[in-house]
Amino acid sequence: MKLIRFGEPGREEPGVILEDGRRVDASGQFHDYDEGFFALGGVEALQAWVDDGCPDGESIPAGARLGPPVERPPKIVCVGKNYLEHAKEFDEEIPTEPVLFMKANSAWSGPYDEVVRPRGSRKLDYEVELAVVIGRTTRDVAERDALSHVAGYSVFCDYSERAFQKEMGGQWVKGKSSDGFAPMGPWLTPASQVPDPQGLRLWCKVNGEMRQNGWTGDMMHPVAFLISYISRFMSLLPGDVIATGTPAGVGGGMKPPRFLDPGDCVECGVEGLGELKQRIVGT
Amino acid sequence: MKLIRFGEPGREEPGVILEDGRRVDASGQFHDYDEGFFALGGVEALQAWVDDGCPDGESIPAGARLGPPVERPPKIVCVGKNYLEHAKEFDEEIPTEPVLFMKANSAWSGPYDEVVRPRGSRKLDYEVELAVVIGRTTRDVAERDALSHVAGYSVFCDYSERAFQKEMGGQWVKGKSSDGFAPMGPWLTPASQVPDPQGLRLWCKVNGEMRQNGWTGDMMHPVAFLISYISRFMSLLPGDVIATGTPAGVGGGMKPPRFLDPGDCVECGVEGLGELKQRIVGT
Repeated sequence: MKLIRFGEPGREEPGVILEDGRRVDASGQFHDYDEGFFALGGVEALQAWVDDGCPDGESIPAGARLGPPVERPPKIVCVGKNYLEHAKEFDEEIPTEPVLFMKANSAWSGPYDEVVRPRGSRKLDYEVELAVVIGRTTRDVAERDALSHVAGYSVFCDYSERAFQKEMGGQWVKGKSSDGFAPMGPWLTPASQVPDPQGLRLWCKVNGEMRQNGWTGDMMHPVAFLISYISRFMSLLPGDVIATGTPAGVGGGMKPPRFLDPGDCVECGVEGLGELKQRIVGT
Repeated sequence: MKLIRFGEPGREEPGVILEDGRRVDASGQFHDYDEGFFALGGVEALQAWVDDGCPDGESIPAGARLGPPVERPPKIVCVGKNYLEHAKEFDEEIPTEPVLFMKANSAWSGPYDEVVRPRGSRKLDYEVELAVVIGRTTRDVAERDALSHVAGYSVFCDYSERAFQKEMGGQWVKGKSSDGFAPMGPWLTPASQVPDPQGLRLWCKVNGEMRQNGWTGDMMHPVAFLISYISRFMSLLPGDVIATGTPAGVGGGMKPPRFLDPGDCVECGVEGLGELKQRIVGT
């Protein structure tokens, strides 16, 4: 069972993909995949409904748009420079502990939505990442207990405008937060189906050309450590998303750099968790 | 009319303070002061209800806790180093354009709630700020139109752990986001009652001693410019909060620094908008 949401932006309904590939509307049973859903053990309740044969569940129309598989998260916490080879790409200092930054949750979008290159953008870049969705309130949790706080995993692209991020003063959030810069999906895989989040290939292709080709085992700080570390500085809430960093191969790290232009097609995938696909469009 | 919310944390109900000081429960008419309320012109509807004599509105119990006057915001965007004398305190570079950072909205709290000094904290600090609450979706707005996007103003304290912020690698969010680090209140003053947001005194006292004593006219980037500027990089949503920066006098800028300890009492105020009061407690 995978969790999906379908329908127009901002009006998505919850659904599931079954083992046999059928897609079933769960909106008769579940309000949405939001903070309250995760806080109240919704994934287990959904699994029980699926195991029961999805009573009263209709098929999802074939042409329905897929939205992000969870409601707009309370917050999106991102980890910078968490793969050594990527950290080296920018000729900057290698951090000794996790670099954290935030992405505005207004950037939240679906797995196949277009990405608008914002006005004034000249350095639009991609970053494929493993996304972690938090399942329950998490404060100062020990690393050994941290993975039990995960509801599921998904694919995330941390779209970044490098000039906004690094050449306009101050903190990175300016280059990370335009509308559409936070697509996640295409579905949420429950944590019980991902025995080792450090054992997954992840990749990003631009116009079919492989640009990033990494392995989550190369994270300098693994998922369990990240959750424990972040939860020392802030409470993680049910439905929060952690973007765990990107491997080498981003456009800004190439010599010369290769940024995204309108018309480009970006595909990001994580082994077993599906693929995102975005077309870049102009303003 | 001022907007307040009352009741236990996470279960607050909406209410108003009338011109004569009476406090009236508005929960029979309004669900909450949240994204939907502001998006649908809730402030005007509330004013009409008040002008009508608050039909069916009961008095709020005298001992009720006040919560933050709006629901947990979609995001909290903060502006760093926006008063010249404060920017100079830290012996760091003076920015030429606004420094933006985010505070986790899980830090959201009420005007008189305690602030827990987090585990490992040695450099807890205060920053009084004028808070702006956004009234409608705002994308790439011109400076001349920006103030019409404001729902109201309030008092904010940007609690900061300086070691977490600056000595642990990476971005400031680590030192800005502990639970309770984002108190706002005690009420929300509708924008129509604040003709000039650049004409307000603001102050912070610690244990009765004046530490910050500033004037919003000293902002390097005024509120209208900030809204316009931020909306180039991200959409501002109804209910979003902008914390507009702090004047000189923070503990970390003193020589030697004077940080907050358990037992300290912090009072932050903005002229005409009320005062926050927090007691610092240990873990």
